[in-house]
Amino acid sequence: MIDGIKPIEQIMRSTSVIPVLVINDVAQARSTAEALVQRGYPILEVTLRTECALEAIAEMKTVAGATVGAGTVTNPDQLHAALDAGAEFIVSPGLTEPLAKAAHAAKIPFLPGIANAGDIMRGLDLGLHHFKFFPAVASGGIAALQSLSAPFGQCFFCPTGGITEATAPDWLSLESVLCVGGSWIETPR
Amino acid sequence: MIDGIKPIEQIMRSTSVIPVLVINDVAQARSTAEALVQRGYPILEVTLRTECALEAIAEMKTVAGATVGAGTVTNPDQLHAALDAGAEFIVSPGLTEPLAKAAHAAKIPFLPGIANAGDIMRGLDLGLHHFKFFPAVASGGIAALQSLSAPFGQCFFCPTGGITEATAPDWLSLESVLCVGGSWIETPR
Amino acid sequence: MIDGIKPIEQIMRSTSVIPVLVINDVAQARSTAEALVQRGYPILEVTLRTECALEAIAEMKTVAGATVGAGTVTNPDQLHAALDAGAEFIVSPGLTEPLAKAAHAAKIPFLPGIANAGDIMRGLDLGLHHFKFFPAVASGGIAALQSLSAPFGQCFFCPTGGITEATAPDWLSLESVLCVGGSWIETPR
Repeated sequence: MIDGIKPIEQIMRSTSVIPVLVINDVAQARSTAEALVQRGYPILEVTLRTECALEAIAEMKTVAGATVGAGTVTNPDQLHAALDAGAEFIVSPGLTEPLAKAAHAAKIPFLPGIANAGDIMRGLDLGLHHFKFFPAVASGGIAALQSLSAPFGQCFFCPTGGITEATAPDWLSLESVLCVGGSWIETPR
Repeated sequence: MIDGIKPIEQIMRSTSVIPVLVINDVAQARSTAEALVQRGYPILEVTLRTECALEAIAEMKTVAGATVGAGTVTNPDQLHAALDAGAEFIVSPGLTEPLAKAAHAAKIPFLPGIANAGDIMRGLDLGLHHFKFFPAVASGGIAALQSLSAPFGQCFFCPTGGITEATAPDWLSLESVLCVGGSWIETPR
Repeated sequence: MIDGIKPIEQIMRSTSVIPVLVINDVAQARSTAEALVQRGYPILEVTLRTECALEAIAEMKTVAGATVGAGTVTNPDQLHAALDAGAEFIVSPGLTEPLAKAAHAAKIPFLPGIANAGDIMRGLDLGLHHFKFFPAVASGGIAALQSLSAPFGQCFFCPTGGITEATAPDWLSLESVLCVGGSWIETPR
């Protein structure tokens, strides 16, 4: 672990909702992070889907109380760019061996997406026990995650995708769920 | 690219529906292709599920205006057999590295099936951006493909499996969908 | 094949339901197996989710008429522990290459979980044609397995997860389904 970097489980246990953010204007990055921290969201995921995402991560991580990660990371190059920007954790939609190995080599907390038992087993083989369940609702919802959790008692999940403020508590009531990813959180546009 | 072979995106953009065909009688292959081209289906997928499928591909590709590919290709041997028969593109139910590498080496347009984010990321690692979403309805339907498309803005899809003439327009309205695979198209038996 | 070990297809065809067992008390292992065999369940899967699971397998396989396998096997170490305990077949929630290769090397009947076409194709590449469809209901149910069976006519399945006594016959009516995994079977606690 890099000094001061929290392991992924500690990050997941610091919050019940990780806002999944698409930042279109870097000028609003800092104020967005400040507002979210104040509203009780200390863990922020900035998706690499916009031009200014890396710059936004650099800005937002200067906000006191914010832990800022990069989302939609799909390959080692993007992972390294996110690290250079100061990302404190890495989230990916799916799990590949090259990406998992790059995260391991960089000693950065890593939350890869999984959608089925094969994904989880490949993750276990790579030493991973914490996963994003993505897309949560479209992959079969709570029933699917319950079924997947049964044989993998040592694994913990952050379901993301299609969850709403109304349904989040149902997901959070599962023992294997530490937090959920939320795209419903309103932010300045 | 082999001279005269269209890239997969061009093939996908040539039609809104690719008939997925199971040809049981090679004697009807040519007339089937002619009828489909006349009805506005220039791109035809012949599944390797019948004895005469390879022979049917060879027959059908002689029809003016028809671009004929092989479907249900699951390994490099089948891919090479399809190429020998004259297949102009290759469709597979899922994505494996050996098959993707064989398609790349053969410079043949390749449309592998995917059903989740891990599949798509493994495809991206192999240089692929065009995928069949299979089985489309049973894998979570339009909501699932929308969720999967969000982090993969650079990818395009041909949903296949369970789509009907009535539901095709809903799928085609997604920005990430270039065409759909249709097994509802009636052909001589 | 180890002498006396039945191939996986023979095991699957010996029953219509494989009880999926979580044994908490090894003292009840033998009587549970006896009762299940008497009620017409000759094939028993003991999941490696409890402390006493391996010991239970050793006990249960001494019961006349019982063929006892290990379930929830996720890596080669667990596979070897299960073999040492006398497991007669191995069931896993998902398919990974290391586990499949370990099963092949040990010549033990192997029933790995799959949930999509990519999984099945990776299985075919490893010489496998028999799969658990898991989690069956949450992965799209009967419609999903029908869609997946269409391009893989050479494959046979044991759907498991969410199936009930009431729904088992519907699953068993599919041509590609040889038996189902059942967790609804009541056993002593």
